[in-house]
Amino acid sequence: MNRTRRPFAIEDATDILARTPSTINALLRGLPASWTLAHEGGDTWSPFDVVGHLIHGEQTDWVPRARIILTHGETRAFEKFDRLAQFTASSGRTLPDLLDDFAKLLEENLRDLGSLGLTDADLARTGRHPELGVVTLRQLLATWVAHDLDHVVQISRVLARQYSDEVGSWRAYLRVISGTQG
Amino acid sequence: MNRTRRPFAIEDATDILARTPSTINALLRGLPASWTLAHEGGDTWSPFDVVGHLIHGEQTDWVPRARIILTHGETRAFEKFDRLAQFTASSGRTLPDLLDDFAKLLEENLRDLGSLGLTDADLARTGRHPELGVVTLRQLLATWVAHDLDHVVQISRVLARQYSDEVGSWRAYLRVISGTQG
Repeated sequence: MNRTRRPFAIEDATDILARTPSTINALLRGLPASWTLAHEGGDTWSPFDVVGHLIHGEQTDWVPRARIILTHGETRAFEKFDRLAQFTASSGRTLPDLLDDFAKLLEENLRDLGSLGLTDADLARTGRHPELGVVTLRQLLATWVAHDLDHVVQISRVLARQYSDEVGSWRAYLRVISGTQG
Repeated sequence: MNRTRRPFAIEDATDILARTPSTINALLRGLPASWTLAHEGGDTWSPFDVVGHLIHGEQTDWVPRARIILTHGETRAFEKFDRLAQFTASSGRTLPDLLDDFAKLLEENLRDLGSLGLTDADLARTGRHPELGVVTLRQLLATWVAHDLDHVVQISRVLARQYSDEVGSWRAYLRVISGTQG
């Protein structure tokens, strides 16, 4: 068994993606704003910002792009994804409200994905990314999985780094704070 | 408000720590072994290994070390923590069983911690780490929080990296795969 790489499969992707809302709920729901608005300095994102970004992905990125590939192939490039959309879209909203939205949108998108009944031939179909060029549907869906996990990494890291000073000399042992990759 | 650093407080630490079992449950419970035994190559750890490591921390690290500080101060160094204990302790066990154990042990330890009624003066008390030297109780408890979040980072990263090849040219945009820190 190759333990470092896994071939993409729709059932796997759906199983992992369906876990993101409950994972982020467990990490964040009920925390005070002083945690959920924490960030890593400069223009880095808070957990609140990340949840808004995940919502925007559900609305404009993954399944909408899959439909563009299936309908237009390489003839129509994807819309450029707006990485900053959440800074206006989440304004004035509460985190529990955003978490509910994300869970609902993701569930609908996974249902839509299932209803497409994608075959291996479909997964090999190609589309056009505005910056990356030709990509496959399979790559798009694998990226959705890795992307959402990347933001679970980010939320956990932002919370942990709030204690960067408080951990004292243990800092050297904590990769999340020292910044070394394990 | 300083959004990049937070002063340590027992109530915060307890609130964040109590979330780890449900977070890891949401990420892992019910996944097939091909995911939970996945790793990043060489002697890196799988999610299954990480949960065993978290159990060993509950049994021998955080609260036991807090008690050593409160009872012996700097006169008695902590036992050295065995980073490889889970490779024998988890052998033959199932992941759901380990997840249940971790949740139960953490809950007991958080109850024990609460029953100590730690004051600011207690948090300033010092102990002796076998490698790092003099540390405070406050640093130990802040490290517990950052440590457990670090392993949520690790589990999410191990899962995401299974698709390192499948994401194709999106790799450049995914920090969890490209290895750059955000």
